[in-house]
Amino acid sequence: MGHSIATPPIITLTSDFGLDDPYVGVMKGVMLQICPWARLVDLSHGIPQGDIVRASLVLRAAIDYFPGGTVHLAVVDPGVGSARVPIAVHGRGMHFVGPDNGLFGFLAEDDPPPRVLAIKPGPFTLPRTSATFHGRDIFAPIAAHLASGARLEELGTPARAMVTLDLPKPQCVSSSFVRGSIIYVDHFGNCVSNVLPEELGLDLARGKWTVRCDAGEFPLRRFYSEVEKGAPLAVVGSSGRVELSLRDGSAAQLGIGLNTAFLLTRID
Amino acid sequence: MGHSIATPPIITLTSDFGLDDPYVGVMKGVMLQICPWARLVDLSHGIPQGDIVRASLVLRAAIDYFPGGTVHLAVVDPGVGSARVPIAVHGRGMHFVGPDNGLFGFLAEDDPPPRVLAIKPGPFTLPRTSATFHGRDIFAPIAAHLASGARLEELGTPARAMVTLDLPKPQCVSSSFVRGSIIYVDHFGNCVSNVLPEELGLDLARGKWTVRCDAGEFPLRRFYSEVEKGAPLAVVGSSGRVELSLRDGSAAQLGIGLNTAFLLTRID
Amino acid sequence: MGHSIATPPIITLTSDFGLDDPYVGVMKGVMLQICPWARLVDLSHGIPQGDIVRASLVLRAAIDYFPGGTVHLAVVDPGVGSARVPIAVHGRGMHFVGPDNGLFGFLAEDDPPPRVLAIKPGPFTLPRTSATFHGRDIFAPIAAHLASGARLEELGTPARAMVTLDLPKPQCVSSSFVRGSIIYVDHFGNCVSNVLPEELGLDLARGKWTVRCDAGEFPLRRFYSEVEKGAPLAVVGSSGRVELSLRDGSAAQLGIGLNTAFLLTRID
Repeated sequence: MGHSIATPPIITLTSDFGLDDPYVGVMKGVMLQICPWARLVDLSHGIPQGDIVRASLVLRAAIDYFPGGTVHLAVVDPGVGSARVPIAVHGRGMHFVGPDNGLFGFLAEDDPPPRVLAIKPGPFTLPRTSATFHGRDIFAPIAAHLASGARLEELGTPARAMVTLDLPKPQCVSSSFVRGSIIYVDHFGNCVSNVLPEELGLDLARGKWTVRCDAGEFPLRRFYSEVEKGAPLAVVGSSGRVELSLRDGSAAQLGIGLNTAFLLTRID
Repeated sequence: MGHSIATPPIITLTSDFGLDDPYVGVMKGVMLQICPWARLVDLSHGIPQGDIVRASLVLRAAIDYFPGGTVHLAVVDPGVGSARVPIAVHGRGMHFVGPDNGLFGFLAEDDPPPRVLAIKPGPFTLPRTSATFHGRDIFAPIAAHLASGARLEELGTPARAMVTLDLPKPQCVSSSFVRGSIIYVDHFGNCVSNVLPEELGLDLARGKWTVRCDAGEFPLRRFYSEVEKGAPLAVVGSSGRVELSLRDGSAAQLGIGLNTAFLLTRID
Repeated sequence: MGHSIATPPIITLTSDFGLDDPYVGVMKGVMLQICPWARLVDLSHGIPQGDIVRASLVLRAAIDYFPGGTVHLAVVDPGVGSARVPIAVHGRGMHFVGPDNGLFGFLAEDDPPPRVLAIKPGPFTLPRTSATFHGRDIFAPIAAHLASGARLEELGTPARAMVTLDLPKPQCVSSSFVRGSIIYVDHFGNCVSNVLPEELGLDLARGKWTVRCDAGEFPLRRFYSEVEKGAPLAVVGSSGRVELSLRDGSAAQLGIGLNTAFLLTRID
């Protein structure tokens, strides 16, 4: 066990299991039997049932803050028991384990491309595979073996591609006019959009910008504290995306939600 | 501390404390002071207040996935401060710590029988015992001492028996006709029953089977994907029990719930 | 890494982030990169948005159960991005990291006084500081560096004072008559008050006492089991405070809540 001397491996967990049933704890028991020193970090178990897009966005927002070698286990798996393929993926210096339903599709266009393996039940999975809980029987043991140092190639056979998701893309009409939409609403009611200024080459620090949508106008500010309590604003949030918020309140309560469209415009 | 070199001990936690108050965190602080290397795994803190049956079912579904030597701490304790006895139990190669109110009753008929000890406040519990939080003052420290290698016998005095629960039992009318009932509804609305085909010697792989109850008919299938989205089905779920489900939906929303009775019948 | 041989450091986490978004997991990733062996214990992430008072009470109820050297990270930060100062505090043998908005104000009158440092972004924080998530960019890395053994003085510059909260204080009218009020309602509906008998020098074991408020009378008892199921009672709860409860029920459902005033009286 080199891990107990050096740095322990990290496994993150993302699922739609909730925390009231023992499903998450059971996956952790399985993993600790295989990799007793693994550090287990929950990203979210509050993904709405079967919401692959949201789970994928949770992963995208989180993985940059974990060290190389981290294993990301994601089990949002409405197709459990169907033809969908269990996969293990190596990309961005990390491992990803879960069903091939789009959860890890955001890695597909990376350069260099990710290595994708189709997993089959075998010596690295539990002896019996149930029909309904591959998180426990397949994905958790695979994740723990990767954390323990198993080589990706031992776990399955190379797959040509993986499923990707069709997320709405922002339209950069000009350098001062962008059409975007809301792709994630957080616990505070902050409405996170598909507009990543850095990716689009937009310099929002230059001039004044505002966001307009059916719910009203959200002037772009750097900090919440630049507007009055309860007032609307747009900010570049913690994941680098344009977000619509109410200071000390919930923009979601204005009726903004998934797929709400807006215009981000330079006004000065 | 042999544990830091070899394999760290595991303590699981089950309670009705919820996660909004610091009660669970406080129990973990108490345990880490006694057993700094213990791995702490939450099974559920979302047990409804005082629901001993549900907590017991959570334990039953989870413990097989933890290694020998694991300590299971369970604090669903409506009788805290009354005459109910704090116990530590050794069975199935593991330890169990909590109030003697039925939580661990499922071990009672094991062969060999479990060893049960009545715990008294003393050197292995906190110096002061509050009237309302034995999870912190008695159970957590006892669990941590067991995880640290204390022998069961040091912690209390042998008890003759422990409280058991009276769960509804399935009736196996014939090899093709079973009366069962729902004992657990999970986060997805899957309705888990008291019918364990393996225990009853039922071979559900043979022939066609169906479940009938007031809410309708649930044909037995191996996988969710064998029926249309939103269609009802029965499966043998991840804990080996017959479960009623809607594919990508919630069977609980059909009005099925705790104690719903059904007939499982071979139809072909 | 002395920690992997001796005792691993502990970091507790308190926030209003909820558990559905990846924010808590991201802070843990940041901390484990800096201090891979830290034990991370969640106190609560269910603090209502911006509720500094409740977060502070959660900390006060929990910290006594953690060992010296523990780092308490608390991020309830409605003023993120404004002039409020990030601080690290050393008091009671432990460290506290978060915004200077009153979260740690309960330490202010300690003797000896706590050491307070104003933190500035620098070598101990993430390279980029976002406008909205100082929990990730400033507080988590500072907490992890403290857990790794960084000296407080390295992290910032001494601050003269910190913000304190103005909690309602109980009025001890006489040795047998106290006016108090509810300051915290827990998951069970137990209504916890600002009356700490030990602090006030009240000997509640002497004579008979009762609590009266608009919702009725709550006789003081030692144990829940001293009254019938569903009956009201007052107890000295697990944090040493007078609490109003219903046995196996919720006192909050009687209409008692934050700031409900009551009289605690000796009646015999």
